[in-house]
Amino acid sequence: MFNRVTIIGLGLIGGSIGLALRKAGAAKQIAGYDLGRGVSAQASKIGAIDQAYECIADAVRGSDLVILATPVGAVRALLQAIAPVLTPGTVVTDVSSTKSQVINWAEEFLPEHASFVGGHPMAGKEVSGVEVADADLFKDCIYCLTPTVHTNSAAVSKVAALIETLGARVRFLDPAEHDGLVAGISHLPFLVSTALMATVADDPTWGDASLLASSGFRDATRLAAGNPEMYRDICLTNSTAIVRWLDIYISKLSDLRDHITTHDKYINESFAKAQQQRQQWQASHHPDE
Amino acid sequence: MFNRVTIIGLGLIGGSIGLALRKAGAAKQIAGYDLGRGVSAQASKIGAIDQAYECIADAVRGSDLVILATPVGAVRALLQAIAPVLTPGTVVTDVSSTKSQVINWAEEFLPEHASFVGGHPMAGKEVSGVEVADADLFKDCIYCLTPTVHTNSAAVSKVAALIETLGARVRFLDPAEHDGLVAGISHLPFLVSTALMATVADDPTWGDASLLASSGFRDATRLAAGNPEMYRDICLTNSTAIVRWLDIYISKLSDLRDHITTHDKYINESFAKAQQQRQQWQASHHPDE
Repeated sequence: MFNRVTIIGLGLIGGSIGLALRKAGAAKQIAGYDLGRGVSAQASKIGAIDQAYECIADAVRGSDLVILATPVGAVRALLQAIAPVLTPGTVVTDVSSTKSQVINWAEEFLPEHASFVGGHPMAGKEVSGVEVADADLFKDCIYCLTPTVHTNSAAVSKVAALIETLGARVRFLDPAEHDGLVAGISHLPFLVSTALMATVADDPTWGDASLLASSGFRDATRLAAGNPEMYRDICLTNSTAIVRWLDIYISKLSDLRDHITTHDKYINESFAKAQQQRQQWQASHHPDE
Repeated sequence: MFNRVTIIGLGLIGGSIGLALRKAGAAKQIAGYDLGRGVSAQASKIGAIDQAYECIADAVRGSDLVILATPVGAVRALLQAIAPVLTPGTVVTDVSSTKSQVINWAEEFLPEHASFVGGHPMAGKEVSGVEVADADLFKDCIYCLTPTVHTNSAAVSKVAALIETLGARVRFLDPAEHDGLVAGISHLPFLVSTALMATVADDPTWGDASLLASSGFRDATRLAAGNPEMYRDICLTNSTAIVRWLDIYISKLSDLRDHITTHDKYINESFAKAQQQRQQWQASHHPDE
């Protein structure tokens, strides 16, 4: 299906894409590039890439598909670095968590003869690194694509074919709409989780409290284990949408605080509403868990 | 070990205690009482109790150990109801999530010849009901006991023996200390989770957003599926400690909001600190997950 695919950034996502491509036999050659010490070697070892490159120009040259699988903060410099060596017809896509800013950079830096299609797989783990890469990571996941009116339709088809190979389902969204939605269901939950972890663990009682913390605490704080640099980049590139959600969230919490302070006997009604919302979501989207 | 144990409230916790007692052969007879339609019959059917009672006085009469396994809001009325029929030497314990208020009620209502020992197993599921009861629910969990200077030491030993039968580990705490700690690692995480669920699901974008929400969202909102009445009772009986934690939490979130608004490039440092705290906790307390 692909002659030569280049994956830049060989962490959980990049490594998993490589493994899935190989498993499906969908690329004649998979080239890889990663700045991290020993990461490319490890990716070769587990079969996520066929060949590791130390020079990004060499990695990209001659590829029909280039996948940027780094935190969003690295994408700007990478687009600048690869722009001069892209051959006509090359399709570039990314997997980063915010799309509007990335698309602006692509329009600014990529040559006319290359096409950019913004992408974002709704998959992940709270752990990162090529060590935990998994060919089935994207199976049955939603994979957002955010083409604009300027995006070449053949390029969109090419990335959609990649997504099918990964076993994921394409969902087309406007870039700004995407960024608003994921700010609510992904970036806000991370902030909620990291603030919870900091709140309890910064307290002088944490030594005793940590012994009592159980499965509920574990789940509520799981996202706090996420990659700090990735989430910094997300905050820097999606601040408006995130702050909008944070304001609504803080306001909800403040309401709850007032109801608790005044011993509101009917506070269970708002808990019951959220319980129902959670159960409906779970039943529709994750019925087996 | 016990002649006759009475379990009042046959939900997840009460039902699981019954199953664990039977599995261990630790009680000659297990009596059960529950107000819910069909709940006692179901508990009998799965073997969590030997005999179901419709009258609470009959259920309690002649027991050497009475376990109140209801939401904390029901405990006051239950203590009043059982007080007249308790025989000398009967030990009463509870499993509810807040302890100071319950102990005040026990001191107010129980006769001198009965003993109360407050308890709280740090175990649970986000689903409730006797249908999900499990003899191994308490295995290797921490089980808090909160005796006071007035508590009979033989009674404490009796409840400690029950906990050993369940496969849990006893941890002794002062009642107020207990309430402050669990407010941070259990009640606050619930509020964080229910407010998150409400924030995103009350928004007009939820129809689209719900399709993108994935495993991170699932974990961060899992506690929102908890029993609304149980959490109402918790809020009503532990409001001071909960509001203290909520204030710290809201303040942390507001700080994050300010850093995001001003595009702070070093925001990853606070994420990295929380990540480390989470990883340390996980490694010390849940190394296998």
